[in-house]
Amino acid sequence: MAESQGQGKVALVIGAGDATGGAIAARFAKEGYIACLTRRSADKLQPTVDAIRAAGGQAFGFSSDARKEEDVIALVEQVEREHGPIEVMVFNIGANVPSSILEETARKYFKIWEMACFSGFLNGREVAKRMVTRGRGTILFTGATAGLRGAANFAAFAGAKHALRALAQSMARELGPRNIHVAHVVVDGAIDTEFIRTSFPERYALKEQDGILNPEHIADNYWHLHAQPRDAWTFELDLRPYMERW
Amino acid sequence: MAESQGQGKVALVIGAGDATGGAIAARFAKEGYIACLTRRSADKLQPTVDAIRAAGGQAFGFSSDARKEEDVIALVEQVEREHGPIEVMVFNIGANVPSSILEETARKYFKIWEMACFSGFLNGREVAKRMVTRGRGTILFTGATAGLRGAANFAAFAGAKHALRALAQSMARELGPRNIHVAHVVVDGAIDTEFIRTSFPERYALKEQDGILNPEHIADNYWHLHAQPRDAWTFELDLRPYMERW
Amino acid sequence: MAESQGQGKVALVIGAGDATGGAIAARFAKEGYIACLTRRSADKLQPTVDAIRAAGGQAFGFSSDARKEEDVIALVEQVEREHGPIEVMVFNIGANVPSSILEETARKYFKIWEMACFSGFLNGREVAKRMVTRGRGTILFTGATAGLRGAANFAAFAGAKHALRALAQSMARELGPRNIHVAHVVVDGAIDTEFIRTSFPERYALKEQDGILNPEHIADNYWHLHAQPRDAWTFELDLRPYMERW
Amino acid sequence: MAESQGQGKVALVIGAGDATGGAIAARFAKEGYIACLTRRSADKLQPTVDAIRAAGGQAFGFSSDARKEEDVIALVEQVEREHGPIEVMVFNIGANVPSSILEETARKYFKIWEMACFSGFLNGREVAKRMVTRGRGTILFTGATAGLRGAANFAAFAGAKHALRALAQSMARELGPRNIHVAHVVVDGAIDTEFIRTSFPERYALKEQDGILNPEHIADNYWHLHAQPRDAWTFELDLRPYMERW
Repeated sequence: MAESQGQGKVALVIGAGDATGGAIAARFAKEGYIACLTRRSADKLQPTVDAIRAAGGQAFGFSSDARKEEDVIALVEQVEREHGPIEVMVFNIGANVPSSILEETARKYFKIWEMACFSGFLNGREVAKRMVTRGRGTILFTGATAGLRGAANFAAFAGAKHALRALAQSMARELGPRNIHVAHVVVDGAIDTEFIRTSFPERYALKEQDGILNPEHIADNYWHLHAQPRDAWTFELDLRPYMERW
Repeated sequence: MAESQGQGKVALVIGAGDATGGAIAARFAKEGYIACLTRRSADKLQPTVDAIRAAGGQAFGFSSDARKEEDVIALVEQVEREHGPIEVMVFNIGANVPSSILEETARKYFKIWEMACFSGFLNGREVAKRMVTRGRGTILFTGATAGLRGAANFAAFAGAKHALRALAQSMARELGPRNIHVAHVVVDGAIDTEFIRTSFPERYALKEQDGILNPEHIADNYWHLHAQPRDAWTFELDLRPYMERW
Repeated sequence: MAESQGQGKVALVIGAGDATGGAIAARFAKEGYIACLTRRSADKLQPTVDAIRAAGGQAFGFSSDARKEEDVIALVEQVEREHGPIEVMVFNIGANVPSSILEETARKYFKIWEMACFSGFLNGREVAKRMVTRGRGTILFTGATAGLRGAANFAAFAGAKHALRALAQSMARELGPRNIHVAHVVVDGAIDTEFIRTSFPERYALKEQDGILNPEHIADNYWHLHAQPRDAWTFELDLRPYMERW
Repeated sequence: MAESQGQGKVALVIGAGDATGGAIAARFAKEGYIACLTRRSADKLQPTVDAIRAAGGQAFGFSSDARKEEDVIALVEQVEREHGPIEVMVFNIGANVPSSILEETARKYFKIWEMACFSGFLNGREVAKRMVTRGRGTILFTGATAGLRGAANFAAFAGAKHALRALAQSMARELGPRNIHVAHVVVDGAIDTEFIRTSFPERYALKEQDGILNPEHIADNYWHLHAQPRDAWTFELDLRPYMERW
């Protein structure tokens, strides 16, 4: 990452390994932001970084364990030093692993919370500290329907997503008046990813009827949220295919 | 309105008397839609119609009592015959009149519901009937925080806005799979209107700090909702100034 | 009603025609309240009134159109004059009639709101006026899941129930500090009624497994709400069979 | 605790150190249940245990760290072996420690979740495993308003309480059909505790006007929930003083 071309406005995407995180990074890069993408091992980010660059954007990948405080502190420090102020942070780590409550292990229950919520807290807090000193910034959290209601076999995931939503709402209420826009996007439906394609082929087949979410269309909404003037900010919006039952 | 210039895509704004309805109509006109604006007496629409035309857009005003079924049926018939298919309908009538429950009159309680909810039903249903035959369309309802929670002295308004939200949600669940996008916008905060300027001057003074909503920025979100591809539709988003307490 | 035995504490049940209203009236009569039951034609109340009396309680039936302001005013006046102060009012009128939004008539949409919501406003307001002068009282509204979320084919019923919940919440917030306990009971599931028995026999068959709600058990919860000391009041509780999906 | 007097129906109260947990234990003891109370160090339970016994009830205190899986497993095993089947489990651990998001430490954010949510998962799961084998049981979680909405300076507590509510709701949906009644009580307001008395004396002074919650009245509602027949179960009820703003 030595090829940093000076300072610019940074969009930091935490958990950019999947299609959604990559599409969001690409969208902000297209708008002139320096896209900084993270995941636990940066190797897997390279195709996304390359694609953004091939399209004329700036992108950099970072190895960072979003669950480790020291990693998160170091990441934010490095990104700002090498690339410029983080204007936008997108937290996009999920952990949707179902289990009956009777068989849920303590380890898994903890891990799901650690990935889907605690990481959001660590990254949100570190970035917010920088943003308040500058008096501006946007922090976007990717949520899910499980953040709004519990369901049989989803105690762990629903708990983590509820807690993430509470974090977003608490931050929005505290930081809004300080000109930091915090928002929460409820993605409700299957996304066009390799995972859905291979694991849920019947679901994936709905793609032909626009029945699964296109990551680029999700990304357009993240950009829209960031672009809102501060007299009319959205805290929460939901996204789902027209044919989804809800 | 004899000067109809043939058929086009129509954006019908019910209750376009205020700043918000006017700004929404102007936004859709700017995108090439024929803006059809209604209020009980069309005279008051003329300045808005003129402004849209001066900016190069197409606009027409209609007198229509949104609470009267025969008026609504006639309006939808006339608009489609004279100007083309209604691609977007925006329902934007409010009726925020507080009162202690102890002093609320039956007449006022009814009137508030009739204006803020029943009109939404009549217009939504009539437009939906046309849209399902074409297999496309967008219906947007303007909501308020009172649609999410009751409050002392707001039983009538909260009731009407709750009912309107239930209408929107029921329509979204029924019509979404038929390719009709129904959405609900929760406007939470004072809007930059003549009413706020004269009645709540202290509130209005926050305009200098972006503390009240700019109607044009509200309108941008209505356009964004309409423009969403159908694999990623939003049912609900909220809008409030960054400094608003909520 | 000539047999009035002087003044006592009154429990007024609006819409006591069904099993639930009758069971609630009986429950309060058992606790020593004078049960005053209303429905549009009082004849149909006689069996319930007789049953309460046979069990040693006091009960009186009243013809009253809960949707007519003059009827409601006269009813409250008569009940208080003949039987004593209304300590508890239970509003128990529903109107669950489904329809596609495309076929819903203006008349039916209005009627459902008038029965399930407007009546609640009229009766709630009239009773509240009396209660605030005495500085005490309980007002209980029977709600439904449709009061919390809209659903395809339920725009009218969901709208009315949402508005009723908004009424209850607004009244609770305004009148709580004046020592009037306003609460909302969300009944979620089929109730053991003649209607369910004849119209939904498969559902009714779940009775053997306790799969439908027993009106007497519903009534116990209304009593519980009324009996709560004022330092620990409930605004809302839900009731559903253990096997109900939700 | 060698003096166990044979087997009986057990009510296990996790986190019985405060006034609320103690009052709930006493309420179930009064109904004939063997009250088993836990907290990290059992010494502090002795006064409550003694008081229940003095009133003629059976009570036993247990040292148990509710956050440690091995402790929880051992506790449930011991309680059932020594005293009988756990018919009711009440989870009553809170951790309401405010902080600006900017100053919240990773350690404290984790600790609050661990106490207020993870402990609830561990105890809920262990007890549920036993209950499903018997096909009956009640699990009650003490919630808070912070479980319903986030607030400035309460990201950690709101997150934990949101996650606890999601746990309760997920368990209710999964275990209800297996005849396990899971419910969530939203306590909204100051409780009559030593903590409030010494730390918030102005708030405590409202006690004279019934402005703070009496733990015994809270306990009555826990008993009410447990006593509900299974055709009419409540998942959630709120409790607040009549004069509380909400």
